[in-house]
Amino acid sequence: MALLDESAAGVFIIAVTPFTDTGAIDFASADAMVEFYLARGATGLTILGMMGEAPKLSVAESVAFSRHVVRRVAGRVPVVVGVSSPGFAAMGELARAVMDDGAAGVMVAPGGALRTDDAVLRYCGQVAETLGGIPWVLQDFPQSTGVFISPSVIRRVVEGDPSCVMLKHEDWPGLAKISTVREMTDIRRISILVGNGGVFLPEELRRGADGAMTGFAFPEMMSGVYAAHRAGDEQRASDLFDAYLPLARYEQQPGPGLGVRKYLLHKRGAIASAAQRRPVVGIGPREIAEVEFLLARQALRLAALG
Amino acid sequence: MALLDESAAGVFIIAVTPFTDTGAIDFASADAMVEFYLARGATGLTILGMMGEAPKLSVAESVAFSRHVVRRVAGRVPVVVGVSSPGFAAMGELARAVMDDGAAGVMVAPGGALRTDDAVLRYCGQVAETLGGIPWVLQDFPQSTGVFISPSVIRRVVEGDPSCVMLKHEDWPGLAKISTVREMTDIRRISILVGNGGVFLPEELRRGADGAMTGFAFPEMMSGVYAAHRAGDEQRASDLFDAYLPLARYEQQPGPGLGVRKYLLHKRGAIASAAQRRPVVGIGPREIAEVEFLLARQALRLAALG
Amino acid sequence: MALLDESAAGVFIIAVTPFTDTGAIDFASADAMVEFYLARGATGLTILGMMGEAPKLSVAESVAFSRHVVRRVAGRVPVVVGVSSPGFAAMGELARAVMDDGAAGVMVAPGGALRTDDAVLRYCGQVAETLGGIPWVLQDFPQSTGVFISPSVIRRVVEGDPSCVMLKHEDWPGLAKISTVREMTDIRRISILVGNGGVFLPEELRRGADGAMTGFAFPEMMSGVYAAHRAGDEQRASDLFDAYLPLARYEQQPGPGLGVRKYLLHKRGAIASAAQRRPVVGIGPREIAEVEFLLARQALRLAALG
Amino acid sequence: MALLDESAAGVFIIAVTPFTDTGAIDFASADAMVEFYLARGATGLTILGMMGEAPKLSVAESVAFSRHVVRRVAGRVPVVVGVSSPGFAAMGELARAVMDDGAAGVMVAPGGALRTDDAVLRYCGQVAETLGGIPWVLQDFPQSTGVFISPSVIRRVVEGDPSCVMLKHEDWPGLAKISTVREMTDIRRISILVGNGGVFLPEELRRGADGAMTGFAFPEMMSGVYAAHRAGDEQRASDLFDAYLPLARYEQQPGPGLGVRKYLLHKRGAIASAAQRRPVVGIGPREIAEVEFLLARQALRLAALG
Repeated sequence: MALLDESAAGVFIIAVTPFTDTGAIDFASADAMVEFYLARGATGLTILGMMGEAPKLSVAESVAFSRHVVRRVAGRVPVVVGVSSPGFAAMGELARAVMDDGAAGVMVAPGGALRTDDAVLRYCGQVAETLGGIPWVLQDFPQSTGVFISPSVIRRVVEGDPSCVMLKHEDWPGLAKISTVREMTDIRRISILVGNGGVFLPEELRRGADGAMTGFAFPEMMSGVYAAHRAGDEQRASDLFDAYLPLARYEQQPGPGLGVRKYLLHKRGAIASAAQRRPVVGIGPREIAEVEFLLARQALRLAALG
Repeated sequence: MALLDESAAGVFIIAVTPFTDTGAIDFASADAMVEFYLARGATGLTILGMMGEAPKLSVAESVAFSRHVVRRVAGRVPVVVGVSSPGFAAMGELARAVMDDGAAGVMVAPGGALRTDDAVLRYCGQVAETLGGIPWVLQDFPQSTGVFISPSVIRRVVEGDPSCVMLKHEDWPGLAKISTVREMTDIRRISILVGNGGVFLPEELRRGADGAMTGFAFPEMMSGVYAAHRAGDEQRASDLFDAYLPLARYEQQPGPGLGVRKYLLHKRGAIASAAQRRPVVGIGPREIAEVEFLLARQALRLAALG
Repeated sequence: MALLDESAAGVFIIAVTPFTDTGAIDFASADAMVEFYLARGATGLTILGMMGEAPKLSVAESVAFSRHVVRRVAGRVPVVVGVSSPGFAAMGELARAVMDDGAAGVMVAPGGALRTDDAVLRYCGQVAETLGGIPWVLQDFPQSTGVFISPSVIRRVVEGDPSCVMLKHEDWPGLAKISTVREMTDIRRISILVGNGGVFLPEELRRGADGAMTGFAFPEMMSGVYAAHRAGDEQRASDLFDAYLPLARYEQQPGPGLGVRKYLLHKRGAIASAAQRRPVVGIGPREIAEVEFLLARQALRLAALG
Repeated sequence: MALLDESAAGVFIIAVTPFTDTGAIDFASADAMVEFYLARGATGLTILGMMGEAPKLSVAESVAFSRHVVRRVAGRVPVVVGVSSPGFAAMGELARAVMDDGAAGVMVAPGGALRTDDAVLRYCGQVAETLGGIPWVLQDFPQSTGVFISPSVIRRVVEGDPSCVMLKHEDWPGLAKISTVREMTDIRRISILVGNGGVFLPEELRRGADGAMTGFAFPEMMSGVYAAHRAGDEQRASDLFDAYLPLARYEQQPGPGLGVRKYLLHKRGAIASAAQRRPVVGIGPREIAEVEFLLARQALRLAALG
């Protein structure tokens, strides 16, 4: 399998982890989900991310799930695996296992009590040392991790570590950050994929992002916006984006958002059950009614768009 | 002037504080701004909120600005004044001053190191004691204050203090919280107005909110959505909402959001300058181009809506 | 092995996890460490706590280390095992495994984004359900977890779940909290053991704590203070405490504190190496010189005490 | 009055703000307090700090209190005034007012949502611009402000702004930070005074600090430790420190600590009332009994020390 590099672009969909109603990993659904994502324009898959309920899996389960997905993908697109962990020993073990199984790269979100640029840099240096050359994605998601990564830190990580090939950009607000990193023309140009459910995708692409790495249950929105943007048709990109925005906004809520996403994926046939492992923020009849209301309106808009 | 009470509804617009380019309060713009807001359906005004740059004003300036706005409004709608302060002495002084000048009520966001339900309740008890019967709005905005207020705390505040007449709901996600409070049919029904730039306004109204208290530069969106909702026309409410959503989403960004809002208000003639007092997160040509792109598309959608 | 219950008292020492210089678990040192702790008055052992570097161990290592320690202890004192985890599935698996191996109970620190009393209560309910009757310790350590647990929440956990038998009290400041819980004479009296390196131990015992659950490298300070307190000799308790306080204060620093503790345990012969797994805040010649200066003065004070 | 510069050393006591039992500023007590501090070795006074309840004072009160203290001190020692504020306009106004009245310099704690080195630097640049050459103290107190300032940021502030003449060091743990800054021999040597109630004063002095800027109710401990350290008698410094440590530790508790400090200052005759302005964490009979127990033992130790 080819390794992840700085040319990565398009939509690396953040995959959910499908569970059965009794909480076991649902490997059959994993197969269906892979096909669902690929059929809707995913150019890569990212598994075991935060929205993939990774912290609720044991290491053995993580390895088994990763292996299963990589085999199913069978080289059609690169698979990136989240390996964030409080300890570097566990991070290294998981990273080596999934790379042996054919993953294209791994993703790490600096976590814990990193409170200054120097602390973040030191941490990233230890990540590089732990990974020993495995291509990796630096996940910048301060709302969740509490770790803030400034553009000058990103510069120094990129300068110091050739194996850091991508920034998963999930700061909010973050448009200025994308521009600042893209203006660093004296450093290696890494891939920048954006998160946050894609709710700023058009602006982010115009600022220089290479695509999205997030998990909105309508991957076709993201691949469509990306294609229109690449074709230079920004009005078309925004038309498409606007058609999906009310629902994307709803799915992006912290807390119930994952329940909404799994509801939608289940409804669309990608997974057999919307079950999550505990602890879970569930959704109920009210949320489902709101989703259905938004879905019906979305269908009309899409029909009008053609 | 009538005092604020539990029947408050509609759009209490969060007003900016207009400054001249040299940083002085621009009282002439304050007049124009009041007329701008009222002409677009505001049923109330809220001044000296967080987005009103209140912490950057001296107490004397706060009192002068409040007095000026109250006089200009001249009883046409109620004026609520933010009086949050690290010390209760300052809070009480400001509250009494603005009430003497004709404000309808005040707003307080519990702040500081309140980390348990009991701590929040104790704080609210001290607020009530400090205000001595002045009608007040409990602002629930954890993303900014770090203070989390559960529905059961809201229940106890409402039960214990008849002068708390409104919840400014700005938690995110917060739909479930609105439903939970509205299901408390055994307590006094207080007004719930929602914040966060209105980007969940249709869902929030359907969950039982009475309107919005936020500062999107197109108040007519919020008054229009509210009117359609009250008329039972939820499709019309969502049509209107969706037409504004891409821009509302953009303005709601933390950091540059206030610059965007003041840019729009200036462009629309509500204020003479978009200047903010320092510290400030400015906006530049990129942000302006993005706003203009969104504005042009919004105009087309509104024209199509009729 | 007897199960942990509300009568637990004395010194449940928070054990380190000994590593070899190459980062493997050092089982031989684990044996020596157990004997070191027991010989200095430990009435219980707590392993796989935060200061035991638990998040840096794999699940398999956690189970193996726990099994080894339980066997070595061989019923002489109860062993409590930390099982905190982002997912309840992993928590339950580890808890059942260590209980099968003879642990007396487990410890859980509510973590994650729990921001209201109700959220903490709901979480503790899920802990109880997950543990299915295994006796457990509620760890209250907001400085580290960001989760604040009020006395009224403790009351409701104790009332609702007979398997919660102990509070590990590590809030700071926390003296008032101990008093408040002890005044709840209408609920089951649970054990309260205190943390934070023991630097408030005399006051905490006088407020109603039953002992300490912390890891100061001189367990004899804590067992000695506890014994004097039980004998009613508060001056003796404070004499002993004061003699150790300068060093205890130094070891309690967040960050380098664990390095200091392992240095001391190594110097005292309890473990073969002071190595920590990464990420690590190391100590160097300056810290060692400061520790040695404090040690020399401590020895003189202890000699004078007799 | 001489301006504050890099040679500042010794004990700049953090003064409380004395209130009458009805909450007014007690100017008579301010006089007595000044004499109390100076008689016990204070080489400077710092007023309107966090433990001076500054956020609970109006600007007018702040100016009046500062003017009163400066006049009473009458040039015997320099007076530093805390001017931290959410807005730079208010910061600048207060700073100019107190400097006109004869203060020697001001102190600023970067606050708010500063989350990267660049953000802190930008903020400090705006402070310098606002102060326009007034000598100022950079307060580094992350536990309270949430803003973390790395040594490399301190370097850049010192290099870029000749009016920043002192670091108030209050990070915890912070010994390594003092050493790191002191090893920066290629930059201007600024004064470093330490906080946190002085509970690490001996180690901090040996690491290169120039004294203390904190408010322990026994200033003679800090001036005595400083004098012994300057005389090269580290055992004497530690003997003195250790004699006061149990009480200093108790007073340093966040929350009730200020109540303890005011109780002690009242008992020692420095202020007429221990009253604080609300919101307040009070102390009661339990805390007073604990303080008295510690005081009695401290008196015996001091008598033995000679």
